[in-house]
Amino acid sequence: MSLIRIDETLDDLGIRGIHVIQKREGFRFGVDAVLLANFAKVKNNSSVIDLCTGTGIVPFILAGKTNAKNITGIEIQEEFVEMAERSVEFNKLEERVNFINGDLKNLALLKKLPKVEVLTVNPPYKLQNSGIINLNDKNAIARHEICCTLEDVIIASRILLKDNGRMYMVHRPDRLVDIVTLMRKHKIEPKRIRMVHPSAGKAPNIVLVEGQRDGGAFLKWDDPLYVHTEDGGYTDEIISMYNSHK
Amino acid sequence: MSLIRIDETLDDLGIRGIHVIQKREGFRFGVDAVLLANFAKVKNNSSVIDLCTGTGIVPFILAGKTNAKNITGIEIQEEFVEMAERSVEFNKLEERVNFINGDLKNLALLKKLPKVEVLTVNPPYKLQNSGIINLNDKNAIARHEICCTLEDVIIASRILLKDNGRMYMVHRPDRLVDIVTLMRKHKIEPKRIRMVHPSAGKAPNIVLVEGQRDGGAFLKWDDPLYVHTEDGGYTDEIISMYNSHK
Repeated sequence: MSLIRIDETLDDLGIRGIHVIQKREGFRFGVDAVLLANFAKVKNNSSVIDLCTGTGIVPFILAGKTNAKNITGIEIQEEFVEMAERSVEFNKLEERVNFINGDLKNLALLKKLPKVEVLTVNPPYKLQNSGIINLNDKNAIARHEICCTLEDVIIASRILLKDNGRMYMVHRPDRLVDIVTLMRKHKIEPKRIRMVHPSAGKAPNIVLVEGQRDGGAFLKWDDPLYVHTEDGGYTDEIISMYNSHK
Repeated sequence: MSLIRIDETLDDLGIRGIHVIQKREGFRFGVDAVLLANFAKVKNNSSVIDLCTGTGIVPFILAGKTNAKNITGIEIQEEFVEMAERSVEFNKLEERVNFINGDLKNLALLKKLPKVEVLTVNPPYKLQNSGIINLNDKNAIARHEICCTLEDVIIASRILLKDNGRMYMVHRPDRLVDIVTLMRKHKIEPKRIRMVHPSAGKAPNIVLVEGQRDGGAFLKWDDPLYVHTEDGGYTDEIISMYNSHK
């Protein structure tokens, strides 16, 4: 299978036969991407952009789960885009999914793109100054705010969204004050929050936020999502998300 | 017992024999005040101010639970202050608890008060324009932003707190974006959030927020607090809060 290299794996997402190419070792998609793709509401025939797309896991899950008309992933690291493009070819999704190798801080590039109804983003979580990091490390770029800050992501989102378009972000609860203050600053109003907890009774460790471009102030809280049951297994909700990906 | 009137009740908080006078019908303290008094961290010999204090329930719980040196409740409605002062007399707490009948928007008044380590507030939850309200109704004043807005409360808190002093607020989750953006605007950094849920698996309906005057940005999430168990009874944590008040 010439599309897949020796240091890569081809992982079946289990939705309409869609697969994604990943490195055997290195950055592989995690629960965050799955939670984000399940949190986003994508109407039929919508256009979607996924920022910080990496190897394209969110676009591929959305291509399988939704009837989005087209889904564009934007990623700064060329190596990931090249892998994502081979996944498009493998899945024969050329008509619905495409990738752009670009920097979301390049506002001139963003302004040329058609505006979308839905934007998803799983941005780097960690502040650049948190911990010892190698600035050339591909995992570090995906996890730390080296190439873009949270504010860069929100500025880009405002440019890319249509009026009243929706932004969906997965992030860490300890950044929630930054997230909502920056969203409101750039006129993407936080409308819905879902907290994800390792299990019931534990503090949340992942947050899902939906914002609306120029939306009015009204915030809805979803019921919490628990990943594990008390006996250490996965909850039914998590199993149902992954069952459609296996 | 001449301190208590015919239309009032004398309620035993069950902590060091402290009681609070309330109207039989009308505004009576609820779970919010109990949650707030249990969320606040009050070191020995601290000075405390409670804004929007009503009949003084938070000061009386804190007088019983903590070794605060002094606790001052500020309330705009004269009738509540008069009741709270009779509760002080009943409890013989004149040396530790006092009340001021004043408007927290009166910044000249606030600036004359000694600054405190701890401030608590259970402000009116509802926006003034939400629902049909009678502007002279005492319950409406306690529940709607008629006499003060959320921003008024935060401006007052900044004036009243010492450097690095802590503010503790109970509010509604649907106002959390407003709360944290206004706190940061007025340099009271949100440091800790605890969500309160009717039961596990239900969306939160109360939020507890701790802020620090001129604090650095770092937000900690506590484990969630569930009020009811699955069978409809109270959880152990709620029972232990109320047991010390019965």
